[in-house]
Amino acid sequence: MASEPLYTATVPPDWVDYNGHLRDAYYGLICSHATDALMDQIGLDAAGRARTHSSLFTLESHIHYLHAVKLGAEVQVHCQLLGLDAKRLHMVLSLVLPGRAGSVAITVAVCEQMLLHVDVRGPRSAAFAPEVQAPLQALAAAHRLQAVPVQVGRVMGLPRTVL
Amino acid sequence: MASEPLYTATVPPDWVDYNGHLRDAYYGLICSHATDALMDQIGLDAAGRARTHSSLFTLESHIHYLHAVKLGAEVQVHCQLLGLDAKRLHMVLSLVLPGRAGSVAITVAVCEQMLLHVDVRGPRSAAFAPEVQAPLQALAAAHRLQAVPVQVGRVMGLPRTVL
Repeated sequence: MASEPLYTATVPPDWVDYNGHLRDAYYGLICSHATDALMDQIGLDAAGRARTHSSLFTLESHIHYLHAVKLGAEVQVHCQLLGLDAKRLHMVLSLVLPGRAGSVAITVAVCEQMLLHVDVRGPRSAAFAPEVQAPLQALAAAHRLQAVPVQVGRVMGLPRTVL
Repeated sequence: MASEPLYTATVPPDWVDYNGHLRDAYYGLICSHATDALMDQIGLDAAGRARTHSSLFTLESHIHYLHAVKLGAEVQVHCQLLGLDAKRLHMVLSLVLPGRAGSVAITVAVCEQMLLHVDVRGPRSAAFAPEVQAPLQALAAAHRLQAVPVQVGRVMGLPRTVL
């Protein structure tokens, strides 16, 4: 979390629900834009996508909501790669309200995601190009000794007996 | 899935991404609006929320993306309760493109969610009022013998060794 944020969003009025809080789906939109920022970093920006006919599709997204977020708040997104294979990327995004003078940073949500590299001409899954695989490998190496948020890998559920 | 949909959305232009498909986060917004529709059904509409000072907060949302969805598509949301306790609701929403003449319905996403009933004056978690618990119990009883989508309870991950 000491690293620079991947992406920063400021909560606009139309993302706030009847409780006066950031609506659940817009935490997801912040994550979606953060993933766009990651794609820019690894050469899958608009030019790279056009040149290679490729993109990333989201296979799964699991958000854990930890704190409410208010209108106008600045939300920073930090990215940690958890796994990588020829076609897939497993990562966790932490949404953080940065600490100001006298206050500590607060993690407001944790979002685990699985992304698939796709040749959009099919569309069909496709291996990352070497020039994309290289920065992903570098990120994975940089992140591999970081602590993993406790929410990663959790299964949600209630005892079935209460039904 | 034979039941009436809880909610139906038609995909507008601003929900579509650079791939020409419904952006991942807007599957989540459809689910969020479907949850509003469920709240209306169980007496937690705006009037009920104001009267009881209560609301539902999303604790977790796990979306499995199964198919791309195009601009203008009509997406139906079907709801299945999986678990219920004094304060929490575990459910799965299935997002479906309904079958037309000669075509079958396609499930485009499955979203597992855990919701918490909250007294917004704290805010603090609070037991459902009896008049809300009753329709939830009825829904849970109606759904308890339905088949559960295979995505429910899955943990995402890749072998850690590839790092």
